[in-house]
Amino acid sequence: MTGYASEPVPTVQFGGREDVLDLGWGHPHPAALPVRQWAEAGRAAMDRYGPAALTYGHSAGPGPLIEWLRHRLGQCDALIPRPDQVFVTAGASHGLDLVSALLCRPGDTVLVDSPTYHLALRVLADREVGLRAAPVDGEGIDPDATGDLIGRVHREGGRVPMVYLVPTFNNPSGRSLSAARRAALVAVARRAGTVLVEDDTYRELAYDGPAPPSLFSLDDSGPVARIGSFAKTVAPGLRLGWVTGSAELVRALRLRGSVDSGGGVNHTTALAMAEFARAGGYERHLSGIRDRYRAQRDALIGAVRRELPDVGYDPPAGGWFLWLCLPQPRGGTALLPHAEAHGMSYLPGTPFFVTGAGHRFLRLSFSLFGPELLAEAVRRLAAAYRSDAFQRDPAAGPDG
Amino acid sequence: MTGYASEPVPTVQFGGREDVLDLGWGHPHPAALPVRQWAEAGRAAMDRYGPAALTYGHSAGPGPLIEWLRHRLGQCDALIPRPDQVFVTAGASHGLDLVSALLCRPGDTVLVDSPTYHLALRVLADREVGLRAAPVDGEGIDPDATGDLIGRVHREGGRVPMVYLVPTFNNPSGRSLSAARRAALVAVARRAGTVLVEDDTYRELAYDGPAPPSLFSLDDSGPVARIGSFAKTVAPGLRLGWVTGSAELVRALRLRGSVDSGGGVNHTTALAMAEFARAGGYERHLSGIRDRYRAQRDALIGAVRRELPDVGYDPPAGGWFLWLCLPQPRGGTALLPHAEAHGMSYLPGTPFFVTGAGHRFLRLSFSLFGPELLAEAVRRLAAAYRSDAFQRDPAAGPDG
Repeated sequence: MTGYASEPVPTVQFGGREDVLDLGWGHPHPAALPVRQWAEAGRAAMDRYGPAALTYGHSAGPGPLIEWLRHRLGQCDALIPRPDQVFVTAGASHGLDLVSALLCRPGDTVLVDSPTYHLALRVLADREVGLRAAPVDGEGIDPDATGDLIGRVHREGGRVPMVYLVPTFNNPSGRSLSAARRAALVAVARRAGTVLVEDDTYRELAYDGPAPPSLFSLDDSGPVARIGSFAKTVAPGLRLGWVTGSAELVRALRLRGSVDSGGGVNHTTALAMAEFARAGGYERHLSGIRDRYRAQRDALIGAVRRELPDVGYDPPAGGWFLWLCLPQPRGGTALLPHAEAHGMSYLPGTPFFVTGAGHRFLRLSFSLFGPELLAEAVRRLAAAYRSDAFQRDPAAGPDG
Repeated sequence: MTGYASEPVPTVQFGGREDVLDLGWGHPHPAALPVRQWAEAGRAAMDRYGPAALTYGHSAGPGPLIEWLRHRLGQCDALIPRPDQVFVTAGASHGLDLVSALLCRPGDTVLVDSPTYHLALRVLADREVGLRAAPVDGEGIDPDATGDLIGRVHREGGRVPMVYLVPTFNNPSGRSLSAARRAALVAVARRAGTVLVEDDTYRELAYDGPAPPSLFSLDDSGPVARIGSFAKTVAPGLRLGWVTGSAELVRALRLRGSVDSGGGVNHTTALAMAEFARAGGYERHLSGIRDRYRAQRDALIGAVRRELPDVGYDPPAGGWFLWLCLPQPRGGTALLPHAEAHGMSYLPGTPFFVTGAGHRFLRLSFSLFGPELLAEAVRRLAAAYRSDAFQRDPAAGPDG
């Protein structure tokens, strides 16, 4: 074999820049990735299942992983799905791609929360739908106003097949929707005949007590399709996740041509995950990374409190992100080049809105770096914020 | 961990029936699956790449696998693609799903070869396109007539964004398109502005000398998107394959929302494959399974020659399938219940045509069973064929 000497295509997504602490990436800390344990899990799957681990799999995903997922969801959520309500995906993005492909036709209107996961907007844009912001207020998505908006679209002859949101430890805001709003939103979806596509990627990264019950747990009969993932809990490179939804939805996913032809979408990896999870392996690993990410969250919040006392935020009870709001009239978009000149980076707020809003915000990820580097990144951010160059930058004005 | 006691969802796709030798499944022989070597490859990838093997990957697939693929395609095909012409997929079905999603809009006309891979028709149906048979004659797809048909659709205001075919060791017929037709077809596609989606899944399973050069190798500038797979050469459960196409096509694949968000589509498995392939491992494994499948092909053909001397077929020079044509007026569709009553099964010809044709044909897969079971299956098929029940079956008449 030849060719390793020159590698014109990189190996990984992360393009780390020398001398820049980039808090823009929602990527795991390298030490949180279970390198040794995953090698063991792969070997164990080969030992246990033999050739069955390598041949075409069941279209919904292999039974052993589905059984374990049901068990686990009974621990970290309020409802154990039935076996025919679970579909194993090739990651949350693939789950959203599949579910939205089933639900949407070109020209439909899809409502999205604000702010929300920016790359989900890209997945939905591939459906050639019109993206509109669901109404929000200070507590997040507003169920009654969302129902009214769906009604208006219907009266204009449009379809609203789905509403996308991350109601638990939202990316980017870190916030969770209240129990009352969850119940009201599910009722609105049921009445309107729309599907809440609940991105539940961060449920297991709960640092201050259990995550709230999922929207899916409030009604498993059709109005909610919940997307889960092993990307944050085990490893993103595995491309493994799941969907829980009505049996009808799962049946339709199984019948997609590519799913049926391929024998499921990630069979061998799914069986390795069943081995990784066996005998408490998943819970032990999760406990360790929860402690790590909690410490990183606390370090980031502590540094922001010290270094940027006039910047607003809600301390996130889970997930990977701290969402900062700069004091008027300064904004995260305008600050970015100054921050990079000071050796740190982040994502500005605008990609997380379909409305063009978000200029005052910035998203800091506390997943990739340990406490000391996070504190150093905030020192650099604060220096950029206080710098004459930023304070005098005309782009940093009211619309900056 | 609990829940393994009851497994309401099966582990694998294959639903083997007691006492029925089912030659309907295009699945690998269990002994051809590299169980021990794959466990080693997974461990080697963890050793070599550490956390980089588990984090978000490059959107086109990891560099080390792309470099190896280029090297390998230089050996088994007539052109080494450039690095920016390769995209790693989650299997051939996923590749077809992605490429067709890029190329097609609902209502387009997609042309397909006849007979052709039946589950590809399901993937394409998910695009909500109109499927039409490209003109064929005794040598396969007819380039000039196909060009004429595309012209007619264009004149009627329609779009023909792609033509799907398996030109090399076709599933189900086992036949390969001639060099002259390959060149003519690529010229037709170039002139018509349509893309030949070349399913090249069976290239490496060549039993009587090298496979013909791919359509992609004849023109890498745009008119061909070639879909490759590790399903037949290594293991289908891995869900790993690739696409080679123009740099523009690969860039568009990389920018799909789900691909960009997920960091490639099967990163960890792709790096394990790069380790599996290292130091000649792929070639050694391939050489062994080629010998196995060649012996199985020869056993199946020998049994058909002995037991069903009046049945027509072209001996396949590669792939996994023998395509039989029963003498008039008998047909594979009518024979199926009789064959199953005699303890064997297969796929009848009709699913492989969009035209409703194919009643006289049947597809026997020689991949899953060894020589003795293949011979026994043909004995059962011949007994069913000669049985009074079949010969007197009114459904076995001219239209049967």
